[in-house]
Amino acid sequence: MAGRGRPRVVVVGAGFGGLWAARTLAFEPVEVLLVDRRNHHTFFPLLYQVAAAEIEPEAIAFPIRGLLRRFPNIGFEMAEVRAINVEARRLETDGPPIPYDFLILAPGSVEHTFGVSGVAEHAFFLKNLDQAIALRNHILASFERAAREPDPFQRRQMLTFTIIGGGPTGVEFAGALAELIARPLRRDFPTLDFQEVRVILLEAMEGLLPGFPGSLRAYAAARLRRLGVDVRLMAMVEAVEPGRVRLRDGAFIETGTVVWTAGVRGNPLGEALGLPVGPGGRVQVAPTLQVPGHPEIYIVGDLALPEGAGKLPMVAPVAIQQGTWAARNILRVLRGRPPEPFRYRDPGTLVTLGRNAAVAHVFGRAFTGFPAWLLWLGVHLVRLIGMRNRLVVLSSWAWDYLFYERVVRLILPAIAESHR
Amino acid sequence: MAGRGRPRVVVVGAGFGGLWAARTLAFEPVEVLLVDRRNHHTFFPLLYQVAAAEIEPEAIAFPIRGLLRRFPNIGFEMAEVRAINVEARRLETDGPPIPYDFLILAPGSVEHTFGVSGVAEHAFFLKNLDQAIALRNHILASFERAAREPDPFQRRQMLTFTIIGGGPTGVEFAGALAELIARPLRRDFPTLDFQEVRVILLEAMEGLLPGFPGSLRAYAAARLRRLGVDVRLMAMVEAVEPGRVRLRDGAFIETGTVVWTAGVRGNPLGEALGLPVGPGGRVQVAPTLQVPGHPEIYIVGDLALPEGAGKLPMVAPVAIQQGTWAARNILRVLRGRPPEPFRYRDPGTLVTLGRNAAVAHVFGRAFTGFPAWLLWLGVHLVRLIGMRNRLVVLSSWAWDYLFYERVVRLILPAIAESHR
Repeated sequence: MAGRGRPRVVVVGAGFGGLWAARTLAFEPVEVLLVDRRNHHTFFPLLYQVAAAEIEPEAIAFPIRGLLRRFPNIGFEMAEVRAINVEARRLETDGPPIPYDFLILAPGSVEHTFGVSGVAEHAFFLKNLDQAIALRNHILASFERAAREPDPFQRRQMLTFTIIGGGPTGVEFAGALAELIARPLRRDFPTLDFQEVRVILLEAMEGLLPGFPGSLRAYAAARLRRLGVDVRLMAMVEAVEPGRVRLRDGAFIETGTVVWTAGVRGNPLGEALGLPVGPGGRVQVAPTLQVPGHPEIYIVGDLALPEGAGKLPMVAPVAIQQGTWAARNILRVLRGRPPEPFRYRDPGTLVTLGRNAAVAHVFGRAFTGFPAWLLWLGVHLVRLIGMRNRLVVLSSWAWDYLFYERVVRLILPAIAESHR
Repeated sequence: MAGRGRPRVVVVGAGFGGLWAARTLAFEPVEVLLVDRRNHHTFFPLLYQVAAAEIEPEAIAFPIRGLLRRFPNIGFEMAEVRAINVEARRLETDGPPIPYDFLILAPGSVEHTFGVSGVAEHAFFLKNLDQAIALRNHILASFERAAREPDPFQRRQMLTFTIIGGGPTGVEFAGALAELIARPLRRDFPTLDFQEVRVILLEAMEGLLPGFPGSLRAYAAARLRRLGVDVRLMAMVEAVEPGRVRLRDGAFIETGTVVWTAGVRGNPLGEALGLPVGPGGRVQVAPTLQVPGHPEIYIVGDLALPEGAGKLPMVAPVAIQQGTWAARNILRVLRGRPPEPFRYRDPGTLVTLGRNAAVAHVFGRAFTGFPAWLLWLGVHLVRLIGMRNRLVVLSSWAWDYLFYERVVRLILPAIAESHR
């Protein structure tokens, strides 16, 4: 620290954890550098709506420099972190190395295939905006190809969309996709026989939304089935092959689109620390979120497995609270006080199920239907950053709600279609 | 036509020419099939604003099936036309072949490098949305790279943006880029020295906007220079090399970004007809827009060179009027009347020069400044298709005008950055 003035806090990752950590340090006597390999923050909770052609990608992507502009002590660098030299307190990147006094690691999570054969090669994922755009383009292109395909077997295969994983992402995407098909695409493709279109949701457990109260789980499955989703429980995937999914019971699903939402794991950057990586690729940290043996390094969000806190879900509220907590702990240490153990305040969980329906588990209460959906709507609009983005998203939702019109049915950019 | 009921009109290309041709045939006693390799119509006049991070690509892209939904006799097929079998009256595509009774060809134009060495390999273009997104991503990524680049030579090269071609596209893009840099990026990158940033506009002739009245041409150059654009006239480009432009006088410009707006030519599909292709890759057609020897084929828009009409510019009004005209001629022929020769009504030309300034050449009158800019604004908002797109574009323009804020400063999707 000597000779460089104020201590330098480097934050890796501009997701919820990193962004809230940086903002907590605004106007404090530290120099902050936020590092991300993208130039924008992504509002992940609405990612599935990009894939379902409901909202523009731009509506949930925020230029990071714009978000930080008001804070004179926070800088940004677009760089990919490749290694962490904990002894020299320096990040190795694809650009010049970045020295730090304190480090907050918030790189998030990546898809986890559990080694299921063919998933990495043939499935789509919903973990970042590029993937969501590629999936949207692929779905729309599948309908275009089917519309000119004379062979009924090939056509049905093109029009079968298989989602693997019945957690919140799989459930929300299945509902949004079913509604995209039910009205907007049905009107777009008057020559197609929509009896040939299928949305299949595969879940390995005995019910959707594992971890939710039983009444909500039953409601979610019933609701998705009413939307026309073929919900299959206790369905174990053995392999994903070109054009089909093989189940463990030997059955095949002929399908042109496979979306894998069945697993996430901590970002591989966790392994760069040389520390033991626990279940789900997460790194065990002290209750204060500090790395054992390196109290100047904090881990927050999806990558963190804080001792004594149980296995917290990989969701935005955890990341936001941990990012804020880690930043406050650094400020405590700088003031000569001990860092405090993280405590999570669960604000509840909301999962939409298409138009007018959602499940909510808030303040220990479980409820469903229209009230849950309204709550979901309000919470997500308020949490979205930026007035103009709220306006754009609200106008998309209003157009969809009033006119059953999805405004972003675009295969764009064309080159992203084959990218996963 | 026998046995298939109503005659089938196939329209190739869903740009201005093709879309207006199809709409003219709505509710008429013909079966219409519109064919395009994309699933959306692009509002080209605002393409440069996508590249300058001013508006989202989605705001100027319209799902074609949505535009045609009201017209029961018009279908759409997403396909790439590879050849035209004029004897069998059939299009060969990447899918099943498409038979026609009448054909309206409106494939538009593509960039034309005039064989200048290195342009195809190293320059960006502004002829379609994918290219505009790739250019936007590259500009923003150049600033991000420059912000972490310690070497001043490399940094200046990254921050030098060279536009080749002083026609309307080059002029409008230069103005929009200069304003993106002047305020939004200057605020985003407080650590950069903006003395190192340069926008250079190279024009081979003695003035910008060839073909415009002299007073407008002088105004445009003066206005761009006031915005900080380095306008160089009589500058002939010899070659584009990696990281630099070589001029015919032997000088070099070290530059990380080259945008080629100096030439367009008719779509290569014109050559598939086996007809002589004239200057600029355009196909000579009769005054009625019919192909000599094949009166069932019409060519409209950028690809058409109608006999006796002079050399019309490759702009939206020409395409719209010709598309409408060709469709009406087909209806005339079906009613047993002779097709009529095309007459162009010039609605005038408008070119913006950044905030509050434009040049207008309308009804034979030339004017500049704020009135011309207001006219440009109104005309483009009215011409944009779709209420929601108008709302989104207007909100982008309002944010920019009031807060000097470009809302779409996103490198997204990341994979498109290196794509041209």
